[in-house]
Amino acid sequence: MYRSHTCGELRLADTDKNVKLSGWVQKIRNLGGMTFIDLRDRYGITQLVLDVESRKDLSAQARQLGREYVIQVRGNVAERSNKNAKMPTGDVEILVDEIVLLNPSELPPFTIEDETDGGDELRMKYRYLDLRRNPVRRNLELRHKLGFEVRNYLNQQNFIETETPVLIKSTPEGARDFIVPSRMNVGEFYALPQSPQVFKQLLMVAGFDRYFQIVKCFRDEDLRADRQPEFTQIDCEMAFVEQQDVLSTFEGMTKHLFKVIKNVEFDFDFPQMPFDEALKYYGSDKPDIRFDMKFVEMKEMLGDTGFVVFDNAEYVAGICADGCAGYTRKQLDKLTDFVRRPQIGAQGLVYVKYNSDGTFKSSVDKFFDTATLAQWAEKFKAKPGDLLLILAGPQAKTQSALCQLRLEMGERLGYRDKNKFAPLWVVDFPLLEWDEETGRYHAMHHPFTSPKKEDVALLKTDPAKVRANAYDLVINGVEIGGGSIRIHNDELQNKMFKLLGFTEQEAESQFGFLMNAFKYGAPPHGGVALGFDRLTSLFAGIDSIRDVIAFPKNNAGRDVMIDSPSPVAEEQLDELYLKLKNNNK
Amino acid sequence: MYRSHTCGELRLADTDKNVKLSGWVQKIRNLGGMTFIDLRDRYGITQLVLDVESRKDLSAQARQLGREYVIQVRGNVAERSNKNAKMPTGDVEILVDEIVLLNPSELPPFTIEDETDGGDELRMKYRYLDLRRNPVRRNLELRHKLGFEVRNYLNQQNFIETETPVLIKSTPEGARDFIVPSRMNVGEFYALPQSPQVFKQLLMVAGFDRYFQIVKCFRDEDLRADRQPEFTQIDCEMAFVEQQDVLSTFEGMTKHLFKVIKNVEFDFDFPQMPFDEALKYYGSDKPDIRFDMKFVEMKEMLGDTGFVVFDNAEYVAGICADGCAGYTRKQLDKLTDFVRRPQIGAQGLVYVKYNSDGTFKSSVDKFFDTATLAQWAEKFKAKPGDLLLILAGPQAKTQSALCQLRLEMGERLGYRDKNKFAPLWVVDFPLLEWDEETGRYHAMHHPFTSPKKEDVALLKTDPAKVRANAYDLVINGVEIGGGSIRIHNDELQNKMFKLLGFTEQEAESQFGFLMNAFKYGAPPHGGVALGFDRLTSLFAGIDSIRDVIAFPKNNAGRDVMIDSPSPVAEEQLDELYLKLKNNNK
Repeated sequence: MYRSHTCGELRLADTDKNVKLSGWVQKIRNLGGMTFIDLRDRYGITQLVLDVESRKDLSAQARQLGREYVIQVRGNVAERSNKNAKMPTGDVEILVDEIVLLNPSELPPFTIEDETDGGDELRMKYRYLDLRRNPVRRNLELRHKLGFEVRNYLNQQNFIETETPVLIKSTPEGARDFIVPSRMNVGEFYALPQSPQVFKQLLMVAGFDRYFQIVKCFRDEDLRADRQPEFTQIDCEMAFVEQQDVLSTFEGMTKHLFKVIKNVEFDFDFPQMPFDEALKYYGSDKPDIRFDMKFVEMKEMLGDTGFVVFDNAEYVAGICADGCAGYTRKQLDKLTDFVRRPQIGAQGLVYVKYNSDGTFKSSVDKFFDTATLAQWAEKFKAKPGDLLLILAGPQAKTQSALCQLRLEMGERLGYRDKNKFAPLWVVDFPLLEWDEETGRYHAMHHPFTSPKKEDVALLKTDPAKVRANAYDLVINGVEIGGGSIRIHNDELQNKMFKLLGFTEQEAESQFGFLMNAFKYGAPPHGGVALGFDRLTSLFAGIDSIRDVIAFPKNNAGRDVMIDSPSPVAEEQLDELYLKLKNNNK
Repeated sequence: MYRSHTCGELRLADTDKNVKLSGWVQKIRNLGGMTFIDLRDRYGITQLVLDVESRKDLSAQARQLGREYVIQVRGNVAERSNKNAKMPTGDVEILVDEIVLLNPSELPPFTIEDETDGGDELRMKYRYLDLRRNPVRRNLELRHKLGFEVRNYLNQQNFIETETPVLIKSTPEGARDFIVPSRMNVGEFYALPQSPQVFKQLLMVAGFDRYFQIVKCFRDEDLRADRQPEFTQIDCEMAFVEQQDVLSTFEGMTKHLFKVIKNVEFDFDFPQMPFDEALKYYGSDKPDIRFDMKFVEMKEMLGDTGFVVFDNAEYVAGICADGCAGYTRKQLDKLTDFVRRPQIGAQGLVYVKYNSDGTFKSSVDKFFDTATLAQWAEKFKAKPGDLLLILAGPQAKTQSALCQLRLEMGERLGYRDKNKFAPLWVVDFPLLEWDEETGRYHAMHHPFTSPKKEDVALLKTDPAKVRANAYDLVINGVEIGGGSIRIHNDELQNKMFKLLGFTEQEAESQFGFLMNAFKYGAPPHGGVALGFDRLTSLFAGIDSIRDVIAFPKNNAGRDVMIDSPSPVAEEQLDELYLKLKNNNK
């Protein structure tokens, strides 16, 4: 037996017990003929005391130890004279009788402490050492707990967790598939699932009624900062439901998770905000509603102003930043630089200071008199001391820029507290979006999403106007997931495929089995998929999903720890009847 | 709202409630001006009654309905006159007021009943209809429940469920990998994991202490009857443990599962049988110990007999079949045919009838007198009325054949009751096995398995004799899983790689990151991997794992429902710089 207790377990009540502990040497200090060792495992740290004066054997052993050595010790639990109230085991120490060295350690390439001196790349290369650090390990413990509670909740709600295949079929719709050559079926390929969408719909046809799965999904996309080629979804589907049934169920799950994991209770229904409203007031389909600061559209109020920036703009709107009238010239210049960044792309920034003394000072004083600025302030519901920030330009681009500016101001004003949570449903998404490049409609959600009943007639006359039974769960401006009520009728589904530009043959070869399934009594159904990585990082209060994944890949899709991907043996390719083309690399 | 209740929910206490149900039409009967419909969903069946005489509208609708139509009905719950005690809802019926046809159904290609007329291939092609059948759906519900309880148990035992990557690195050891070409790293490939072995060991180095995961694994093997290219493992690892710690933990888990799911309590420690003993007495490393019928080795007792079949044989052994002395010539001939099948491969079968009247009759009466046969009977602990069955030949082959014969006789004698469970641990496996083909040792378990301390010296002198800290969990003759205490010392691990014929470069390129990790304080650790598919089929009392997988593949690795694998577009291969070689197909 390597241990009788863990390093996080012993308390004052255990005094005088003879115990065995195993763990890693966190720290060694010598003090007045005694050696103190902090012994660490996942559960905590316990202080060991070695009386090296009277025990020469222990002394010799202790001299050999270093940080991250793995040892086993035996000794008696004793009350500490200088207790450490910060540590759960801080009342006791172990008077060590015996040390067994289980494994030595080379000096780690970075310090195994809460704050480390290791850079990103080094930490990823030695991920097994990075995972020893408390904050990183705690993220993974949180992930475990979240998964466990998701399952608890859904199990209670009669959901059946059902595994769907990983080796499936390539479909050109959506993102790029990873493909897997088949040796037994030469010249043919499996694809890794971008989501189990079709399978979960088939499970509804199969009468499973309520399905879920916490499941790996795959997308061969060029990786942006916070994307991973493999990611994890909480994937769910329900039969005989309307939109509100799905929302209620997963609102219930979200509340359950916040309650048991963060002790946060939401005693209200999550707001449901139509997509149009989200864009109008927040410039985004995932508004951060921890704070208000809604967009105020000014075009109508402005009329013809003589100020060409406004007059020529398709869209003029602004926000009111509480108590920021005192911003200096330098601060305002910085904000202007912010909105002009290429990734934000505004041309410039108009400000109006509504000073505490009731006067106005703006960057457009040449064009607008005080009365006009006062009228704006009223429209913005501004108080003395507030600052109006106004952008003008093409609508979509300017809304997006103003959204960024709003978030930036929210951040500066401390409105985006990581311990405050503001969930909402964004609903009534458009069914389709026009793609200029291909000159055809794309499904905004996916081709299985149903149109709203009252909008079906528009499919023929004005497809862009058709709203979908689709919804996103947004918390603190982060899209946690989304879903839709699906089409369950093969005629309507075929109509959709046609609208999306599929030839009959394409639709048949890719989704024929689903269309066929719909002929045998498909129930009405719908569901959601939540990003498990994203949800965990929200709960952990961190921005990157990489920190909640045990072994993530870098932006080039590489695992730098195991050095993958890597070349394979010629014979492996031969067996698959594959040949690498020269890529002039 | 599509329903107020499910089809399995209503009871006598609900009488007079106005309810809404949705589901599938299971059956329609017309009787005395009334139409009776069995409405089915996942939760049960409820009887609907339509008064088609007085309600012409309902009558017209009812005439349009057929099997597997999806409908929604509204009506009042009423007590049934002829109750059906076999159905939980059998006390009530719904007097239908309103029917909404949600989706019609074509005639299914096979009947959706507990016993179906559909053949295997048809059922797989229309798997979504096959899954509607109670026995199939129940298997998947059982699978969900098992997974849920595995997690409950392991969570309680402080295990952290941690996802390991699916896109990893190809290693030629073990079975064949599926590989995944990388587009972002042209000419390089990921591999799908055959198991998360290396990652779970790294998690132990990372101090996770107790890890588990219910995880998909992949093997590109030629598929035997009951193999799938993707399968699911309950994968676990623990730090600071010896073999007995691991066995106790997973014996605990097994007991928990049997208790909560099958209401079976094991009030004993699972027997631990050394590999050598399993082979000696049962001819297999996965003995079915629901019944005794141990092998009796005869070579020593026999000495030189003059019967060349015995005299020339390396190995002679038999079993005693209770009360089978009455077997007819025809029955015995059939047993002889059985052992002579190519996949069993015995040359012939010697029988000795120990008749109820105390006389003997054998197939070797010419060579052995009654006294000798009586001596055998005594050695076999046979009673009058028993039948001795004896095989002779090369040891390994004959043990395996006798094992098959023993299982066959156990089956015939009703000793292999599917509701009786006999678990055991097989322990002390050899570390290595000699492979004639490659002329080198292979790891019997895998290259990370540690040798028994007391056998380490033999690594130099007699590697084949070295026993491993390896163990298998066997229930009813089925290997549910296995594991080992791992090597945690880089020197010993390097020695193992050398012994297994890896060059230093191969070991470095494939496992360098693990060897490197071992330099930074690796704790002693070990674990198990249990076959989740196999475990579920054991609990379900069925032989094939295919029946506990929602969407299995056939023996050619094909999903016949979605028709995968399939050819991919030329452009997909171009992006990957891959070319298909002509395979003359």
